[in-house]
Amino acid sequence: MKYSVFIATSVDGFIAREDGSIDWLDNAGNKDADMGEHADMGFNAFIKSVDCMIMGRNTMEILSQFNLSPDQWPYGDLPIFVLSRTLKTLPENVTSKMTLWSGGIEDLIAKLNNENFQHGYIDGGQTIQSFIDLRLVNQLVLTRAPILLGKGIPLFTGNEETTQDIKLEHASAIAYPNNFVQERYKVRYD
Amino acid sequence: MKYSVFIATSVDGFIAREDGSIDWLDNAGNKDADMGEHADMGFNAFIKSVDCMIMGRNTMEILSQFNLSPDQWPYGDLPIFVLSRTLKTLPENVTSKMTLWSGGIEDLIAKLNNENFQHGYIDGGQTIQSFIDLRLVNQLVLTRAPILLGKGIPLFTGNEETTQDIKLEHASAIAYPNNFVQERYKVRYD
Repeated sequence: MKYSVFIATSVDGFIAREDGSIDWLDNAGNKDADMGEHADMGFNAFIKSVDCMIMGRNTMEILSQFNLSPDQWPYGDLPIFVLSRTLKTLPENVTSKMTLWSGGIEDLIAKLNNENFQHGYIDGGQTIQSFIDLRLVNQLVLTRAPILLGKGIPLFTGNEETTQDIKLEHASAIAYPNNFVQERYKVRYD
Repeated sequence: MKYSVFIATSVDGFIAREDGSIDWLDNAGNKDADMGEHADMGFNAFIKSVDCMIMGRNTMEILSQFNLSPDQWPYGDLPIFVLSRTLKTLPENVTSKMTLWSGGIEDLIAKLNNENFQHGYIDGGQTIQSFIDLRLVNQLVLTRAPILLGKGIPLFTGNEETTQDIKLEHASAIAYPNNFVQERYKVRYD
């Protein structure tokens, strides 16, 4: 099974402000730009390529707070697993979309493999770092919003235990008309 | 006067390992790639566009430790100012190339303006953050080395005092044959 990251950060590497808000993401860049075929910056094609999603509690809570209508829900019928060891239930407005997973990541991976999932979408800073640390991420798609926040929650929280670099290959990059830049890499595990 | 940043980071945002080493920068990416006209990833054109350089003590010390021969020195005759309030002298092997500046950044800027400098190259994590915080950086050129280090010295150390986002525009991006990705932005000050 393959796992991919598809996430937006500020150019200085933050995925949210310190309070978790992502208002800056909507305000960054040139909103009047003609995006042509790139209106979704690759999101829909990416979503079509995955068959499940794994996120942490914080990301779930932000999504829940958005209180999206079924029309606005960006993930279609994608099964979504929410990692949390402390939550007992999910907020009511996401229960039909998400499954709470109180076990460890390795157990979830075993389950997904058993159920023949092929490609997982990994979302949220801590969850992404955990999957990177487990050497499980195969593809990184990073969309840089043209803004410097100066402070916030970093995408890469770092890992003091790390002893080995992870090499990336098959780089590609595009600057969109709205001044967002998207980088794509595949991860090489020797 | 205009100030630009031209710096390489790992994809997870580090400019050096925790001990300051940048060995990973030489080892990252596909070293056998045919780089064609992009062998220097834009460095020489950038260097030609600036007329002075400002860096912090740490960056100076790394350069000094490289102990480069005149042939290897990458900055030509560019006047280089080293910010340090504690150093009394520079290491002997860089004294002919660099000037120690013990005053504040604002005083240095006044001096550079007085002497009619036009375009400064800002280097080193703390110095870059200081110039960003002072709203002085006009152009960012970030070259992402295709590697995740997991830990190290971040380019953007963040600024807890920051209250205002900095918007970027005129984005461009290129993925080089060696799998390095370079992003360029201009900074918009409203």
